[in-house]
Amino acid sequence: MHARTVGQAGETEVLRRILARLAPSTAEVGPGDDAAVLRVAGGRVVASTDTLVHGPDFRLAWSSGHDLGWKAAAVNLADIAAMGARPIALLVALTMPDDTPVAFVEDLADGLRQACLSLAPGCAVEGGDLAASDTLTIAVTALGTLDGPAVRRSGARPGDIVALAGHAGLAAHGLQILFERFRDVDGHAVPVDPAVLTPAERRAVAAQVRPEPPIALGHAAAHQGATAMMDVSDGLVLDATRLAIASRVCLELATAALGGDPLALIGGEDHALLATFPRDAVPAGFRAIGRVTPHGAHPVLVDGEAPTCRGGWDPYSDWDQARG
Amino acid sequence: MHARTVGQAGETEVLRRILARLAPSTAEVGPGDDAAVLRVAGGRVVASTDTLVHGPDFRLAWSSGHDLGWKAAAVNLADIAAMGARPIALLVALTMPDDTPVAFVEDLADGLRQACLSLAPGCAVEGGDLAASDTLTIAVTALGTLDGPAVRRSGARPGDIVALAGHAGLAAHGLQILFERFRDVDGHAVPVDPAVLTPAERRAVAAQVRPEPPIALGHAAAHQGATAMMDVSDGLVLDATRLAIASRVCLELATAALGGDPLALIGGEDHALLATFPRDAVPAGFRAIGRVTPHGAHPVLVDGEAPTCRGGWDPYSDWDQARG
Repeated sequence: MHARTVGQAGETEVLRRILARLAPSTAEVGPGDDAAVLRVAGGRVVASTDTLVHGPDFRLAWSSGHDLGWKAAAVNLADIAAMGARPIALLVALTMPDDTPVAFVEDLADGLRQACLSLAPGCAVEGGDLAASDTLTIAVTALGTLDGPAVRRSGARPGDIVALAGHAGLAAHGLQILFERFRDVDGHAVPVDPAVLTPAERRAVAAQVRPEPPIALGHAAAHQGATAMMDVSDGLVLDATRLAIASRVCLELATAALGGDPLALIGGEDHALLATFPRDAVPAGFRAIGRVTPHGAHPVLVDGEAPTCRGGWDPYSDWDQARG
Repeated sequence: MHARTVGQAGETEVLRRILARLAPSTAEVGPGDDAAVLRVAGGRVVASTDTLVHGPDFRLAWSSGHDLGWKAAAVNLADIAAMGARPIALLVALTMPDDTPVAFVEDLADGLRQACLSLAPGCAVEGGDLAASDTLTIAVTALGTLDGPAVRRSGARPGDIVALAGHAGLAAHGLQILFERFRDVDGHAVPVDPAVLTPAERRAVAAQVRPEPPIALGHAAAHQGATAMMDVSDGLVLDATRLAIASRVCLELATAALGGDPLALIGGEDHALLATFPRDAVPAGFRAIGRVTPHGAHPVLVDGEAPTCRGGWDPYSDWDQARG
């Protein structure tokens, strides 16, 4: 017996099944017309887009449809949070092969809904697009509202405290476990057997396939005086370097505050919030990991030294073309 | 000598080259931070997303990078226009193989910019994402503003006039020319030789690869009393059926007003605006093509008869897997 595929079901049925899984729309116009219409308090909208592609961004042996829906929502919500905004809507462009099981798509819709409910209550999928493709791709656009100034990367000032909310290196640790222990002799991804993992290892794998960025803390940080903020998607040193350059300052990081894990400096995909706050104003949920000093020879110092590794990943140079 | 590829250039250079080609941002926060921040007059934002995928949606032998950037913008702008809104920004998620020439990507960025300048002045690319993929995919989200009620599919009333702005069937005629005359013996797409086409045929092919939907007429129609509106992407009969069902009315179309071309009824991809207006209120730019009558046995009648063909295309059932 074979699972029913989207090619057998056709676009209309697939769309109907997805819509049945999503949270009810609270928009002025939700799914079903040419476009969604959303109320935007404050007269400004925050908008960002981020894509998950089968191969470079995920393996189907390691991630369920639910995981992928969740992660596609989470990484986009993090970009909205990093501006100090509150997410209000997602638009999801899903392109997939016609042999994709309908049940997989339903699972993905469940993951989208549950990530919104858990990480950003009040935000829901309000629009999208279905297309055929040889490559399963989930392109999400997130929209949000601001009730104050946007928190940009460029506002850090000497004297500020550098602070982090969320994990540093945990998702990368999970990816390392997947690559080292869940591939066959030819290097193809094989399903994860949780029974062979310690609880700590299971947490790391979960952080990779189903990240939980601290979305609500983005808006809270903005209200509590964050001078600059961004989400850490490429690793702490690389993203801190970007923030330091945009602000024309130096970020001095202390590894003691990061638990001494080398992956904490270079591991990406946790989508933690990296922010700077005036001294004595670091809000609950953030932990101090360094300080802002004047612009100097290096944008980032780690324990007083120029970092020797910076992390990061180039989608065009670094992907090995494997899917699985 | 080989063209420089995105794999050789890397993400940072590709992004820099794209940004150099886009129109300057007029947003509060444009490209370069975690998200864009856009002013939204009227406190509402209109949002839609639509994707072009290599294979089902285009062949590289028939469409240049410029054509694809233009078309990706145009089809998304049409969804915003169809709500009676004015487009203000595009977000572009571009996923592509690492052997994609950098020059192709620059050409695509030029097409995005020029479509915005020509079809929706004031709208620009304000954000996006670059990712690697085996399949070239352009997922665009368009945002717009409304200064009145959204024009939905559901507002048509018996007694209204059915009107159309833009082409009906021209893009489908162009696709027919491409499929019949620009494929090799194995069915692979081969480049178009304009010298063997009549001026009318060249116009049809241009309408397919580089459509020019009447974007500004969407906002104008809303101001002039349109009771319902949508863009025609799947063919006039099928999309009129959707509008009729949403409005619980019958749309009676007259082929004489459509020039007698059978493709006018079933051809998609022109992204014309189909709207209904109170009698005597059809604005300039729209032509009357029928009338709205009470809900009956058929949602659409063509010259008084139930239509025998309706057009439309299912991405999962109808794509033959060829790319080219």
